[in-house]
Amino acid sequence: MKFCSNCAAPVVKRVPPGDSLPRWVCDACGEIHYQNPKLVVGALPEWEGRLLLCRRAIEPRYGYWTLPAGFMENDETAGQAALRETLEEAGARIELLVPFSLISVPYVNQVHLFYRARLLDLEFNPGEESLEVALVEEAQVPWKDIAFRTVGLTLKHWFADRKSGTYGFHAEDILPR
Amino acid sequence: MKFCSNCAAPVVKRVPPGDSLPRWVCDACGEIHYQNPKLVVGALPEWEGRLLLCRRAIEPRYGYWTLPAGFMENDETAGQAALRETLEEAGARIELLVPFSLISVPYVNQVHLFYRARLLDLEFNPGEESLEVALVEEAQVPWKDIAFRTVGLTLKHWFADRKSGTYGFHAEDILPR
Repeated sequence: MKFCSNCAAPVVKRVPPGDSLPRWVCDACGEIHYQNPKLVVGALPEWEGRLLLCRRAIEPRYGYWTLPAGFMENDETAGQAALRETLEEAGARIELLVPFSLISVPYVNQVHLFYRARLLDLEFNPGEESLEVALVEEAQVPWKDIAFRTVGLTLKHWFADRKSGTYGFHAEDILPR
Repeated sequence: MKFCSNCAAPVVKRVPPGDSLPRWVCDACGEIHYQNPKLVVGALPEWEGRLLLCRRAIEPRYGYWTLPAGFMENDETAGQAALRETLEEAGARIELLVPFSLISVPYVNQVHLFYRARLLDLEFNPGEESLEVALVEEAQVPWKDIAFRTVGLTLKHWFADRKSGTYGFHAEDILPR
């Protein structure tokens, strides 16, 4: 059972008039509680051809490796989210370049966005959500221990583009295996 | 006053342990109700150098012109959202090309994403949310009556890129005036 955040009455899931999808509707106050996908924003912090990866100290995927990334917050831009997450998870200061990948993950209602970025110095340190942080070249990427498919895909594109000499923008979808 | 959607107890806004921002927290069941930006996804449907615009039949900005766009829904990809909104608002069938603009609008907690697209035929018709739909060339764009700043910015980039012969990808922020 779920309740209305405005008036605490029980809500029911049904298609509102004029709509085509079921929503959580409050019959007491009339509020329709829409649910929408969330943006996960991160960065590809580069230093001389190597990228900064974090090993997760939290679930999901405790102990696996990821790029610094997290849920975008209200009151910030996507770029600010990438800077904030990189500072929080890797203790690293970066300069953002341009968006590099945009990946829809509909089965978890998320869209992941990663920016190319330049690491400003080597004074990084794992934050509370990371066990360790490491600068890795392509041969050192722990491919079998990458936390999320969007991160693996983004890393593959980045190393391939680096080899080709031209960085593209990669828009894709990830569907259930 | 706001209430917990899980247990109907009143929630309070405060910084949870280990966090840095105030959240709506339920002390009865422990749930933290995060709030995150929403993605608005749309298309730039082209036909021989002209773009398809819709005049809004709903608030906000009733009577003003926009590109077909709307809130991305759960269970769909960003591309599916662009196709769906174009069909709903303009009755138009399109083929999506690539993402063209990604604009953060932090003061309304939104990120707007527009795709380049090719109109498949001229059988378009205004949906319930549009008063009319029109294919316009640059000189016909009602610049003073554009509904949203992200749409005006995206249109300006598109016509400029078309003239230059190269379509880019435009990542920007819009801040309060």
